[in-house]
Amino acid sequence: MINYNLASREDLIKEREELQKRYNEYKSQGLSLNMARGKPSPEQLDLSKDLYKNIDSFIAEDGTDARNYGVLQGIPEMRKLFADILDTVPEKIFVGGSSSLTMMHDTMARAMIFGEIESEKPWAQVEDRKWLCPAPGYDRHFKIAEMFGFKLIPISMDAWGPNISEIEEYVKDSTVLGMWCVPCYSNPDGYVYSETICEQLASMKTAAPDFRIYWDNAYMKHHLYEEKIQTIPDMLALCEKAGNPNRVYEFTSFSKITLAGSSVACMATNKDNMDFAILHINKQCIDCNKVNQLAHAKYFKDENEVEAHMRKQADILRPKFQKCIEIFNEEFSGNGDICYWTDPNGGYFISLYAYPYTAKNIWNMCKDAGVTLTDAGAAYPYGNDPMDAHLRIAPSYPSLADIEKAIRILCVCVKITAIDEMLNDKLR
Amino acid sequence: MINYNLASREDLIKEREELQKRYNEYKSQGLSLNMARGKPSPEQLDLSKDLYKNIDSFIAEDGTDARNYGVLQGIPEMRKLFADILDTVPEKIFVGGSSSLTMMHDTMARAMIFGEIESEKPWAQVEDRKWLCPAPGYDRHFKIAEMFGFKLIPISMDAWGPNISEIEEYVKDSTVLGMWCVPCYSNPDGYVYSETICEQLASMKTAAPDFRIYWDNAYMKHHLYEEKIQTIPDMLALCEKAGNPNRVYEFTSFSKITLAGSSVACMATNKDNMDFAILHINKQCIDCNKVNQLAHAKYFKDENEVEAHMRKQADILRPKFQKCIEIFNEEFSGNGDICYWTDPNGGYFISLYAYPYTAKNIWNMCKDAGVTLTDAGAAYPYGNDPMDAHLRIAPSYPSLADIEKAIRILCVCVKITAIDEMLNDKLR
Repeated sequence: MINYNLASREDLIKEREELQKRYNEYKSQGLSLNMARGKPSPEQLDLSKDLYKNIDSFIAEDGTDARNYGVLQGIPEMRKLFADILDTVPEKIFVGGSSSLTMMHDTMARAMIFGEIESEKPWAQVEDRKWLCPAPGYDRHFKIAEMFGFKLIPISMDAWGPNISEIEEYVKDSTVLGMWCVPCYSNPDGYVYSETICEQLASMKTAAPDFRIYWDNAYMKHHLYEEKIQTIPDMLALCEKAGNPNRVYEFTSFSKITLAGSSVACMATNKDNMDFAILHINKQCIDCNKVNQLAHAKYFKDENEVEAHMRKQADILRPKFQKCIEIFNEEFSGNGDICYWTDPNGGYFISLYAYPYTAKNIWNMCKDAGVTLTDAGAAYPYGNDPMDAHLRIAPSYPSLADIEKAIRILCVCVKITAIDEMLNDKLR
Repeated sequence: MINYNLASREDLIKEREELQKRYNEYKSQGLSLNMARGKPSPEQLDLSKDLYKNIDSFIAEDGTDARNYGVLQGIPEMRKLFADILDTVPEKIFVGGSSSLTMMHDTMARAMIFGEIESEKPWAQVEDRKWLCPAPGYDRHFKIAEMFGFKLIPISMDAWGPNISEIEEYVKDSTVLGMWCVPCYSNPDGYVYSETICEQLASMKTAAPDFRIYWDNAYMKHHLYEEKIQTIPDMLALCEKAGNPNRVYEFTSFSKITLAGSSVACMATNKDNMDFAILHINKQCIDCNKVNQLAHAKYFKDENEVEAHMRKQADILRPKFQKCIEIFNEEFSGNGDICYWTDPNGGYFISLYAYPYTAKNIWNMCKDAGVTLTDAGAAYPYGNDPMDAHLRIAPSYPSLADIEKAIRILCVCVKITAIDEMLNDKLR
């Protein structure tokens, strides 16, 4: 193992030749490995195989026949379950269909057409409207705001959350209308916002009276290590306490608890936002799929049962995350910090920050060797990673054996491209 | 039984006294009957009680694991089933969530924000935009267009469909952007559009290049009588043939086939519209609930099985419709046509056209006697029935015994209010 930073040009060339041999060997295996998306593995989905077998009666606890029309905000037991999970109250919960992403999209679409309570005009009429995007972040979030004509403004992230000084500067502009957040085990870094950051987001002054935070609490129960559980405060309560009760829409779903794309999602917000949203949602639908709500509420009697279920999920996911980190440590220790990575305590992703200006090349080399990663740059607004360094690793779906192969190949590519970049440096 | 039109003032007063006695007697029973909404009865829902018991495997016919993310337009077997039902091809089908109403709303919301393919600008920017509403029609349709700022223009209906001359006049105005249609067993009359009307709607010239028909084919398999089945042509094909391939979005769902509000809905449209819609829908969601799609596709192997299932539905619904019609005939024959009603061959509703300017009073009298009907006027844009005559009867949910009581009370109220109106007529 040589330290790339200290190595001579000749040593680097020699190292590269050896790496190229390893790469060619992997390539010759004709692999087809996909680590691109945060999909649960079949073993995780099997944990919920009896989800629909519990339905012996379709009657909810308030006597509602879940099979018939009505009860727009969701059956009481599902509202309570979501409220307990999000540390809030059932009154603040709207249980939706199977996708929280759709609820976020629809919330923004409503604001585009009708504005928010405090808006002077619909957001579609706000010229040069902008949206804050902690980056790296979730590509699907960014694409919704981009589609709706927002200029996406990247906000830098560190382990305590998004950079609050940058944010406080931007929100002085009244055309900055809101912000994406994945506060717990963020996608893709796995960071958890500190309580201080949460409080500052709740209390900061914004020029736009209708500024909104979309608080995507997708991973609040997705701990990997019992002994390293991290949590975030109830953002609705923080905003209320700070005198900005309408500031936040919180979202979550069971997509990565039970079935991905076929579970139950929810939005949580204060009464005024909820009443305003329902003015429009009650035209959009009569109700959401209550049979699926009932199936979930019967499968998980309370928050404790969700947590017990998530410990089983963690038992499947943990070795996969550990395998990635173990290989990174092994392949890169002593190289002189040519790259670094996050080692999250929960969520679905690991960030790998490769040597500057190499991520796209790494992605292509991996692709050629049969390893599909999330597009390089995808975690940044407009796919534009200014350092071309970030790669999102999604270890959930592949088997341990496949992860071992894919991560080895990735490491070889990181090293080769780093050496190429170093060799290109004429000062060297 | 006296003929109200020929009866003397004294005879009418005497008749009214007898009717009032009947009314008081009903009222004293403290009834609570609801015929307001087109909800399936528990017996109908029980027909699908094994819907989720068939899922022994979650793998769709193309190998897709229905429990995981992906396959935006729906699993192949569900697209095929919808295509067969709608007499079109799977390529034109987008399988959505559990509500076709939501798909209609979302389609209009997209046009509001982005316009349609041919639009010069988003519909939200079209001043004085208007929408054609065959009336009586479905109140939830009207409320969507009203919410999106369209001026609702009522179009008169008869047994062959909406009045095409009125429509052809209105569509000369380029701010008339579209039209609601429930072409088969229309809500609330139960009328079926004639092939000629369908062809004219497909081929008429519209000033707006982006004119759209929202073809809500909610009841295409909802026949009440085997010997009186009515059908409509494939509107997508008609529009294509007429050179207006982008004119129509067709919608339907299994809500009144399996479970109301928890089933599977779809949109059907041509390739250009579909591609344009998907540009936006693929930001709104990753996929729709495919486990529910698979459950439906396994429960109904083909269109024939849907039809067999719908014959069972008809066996439950038919006596209820017949009971209403039978009582109307009995109560009103010989009265001199003080009211008339539709006798549909399918669908979920009966229209009762009471004596002019009495519907609101009838509704109130029924309410006081414990019978809840759909709001008088609800079937007209802005709830404004110009003749205050129409009442929508929804016989699906109550038991036969309850229908008997509710319809008797309704008939008494129709007669009392007709007499009052006649007695108020100073010329009499």
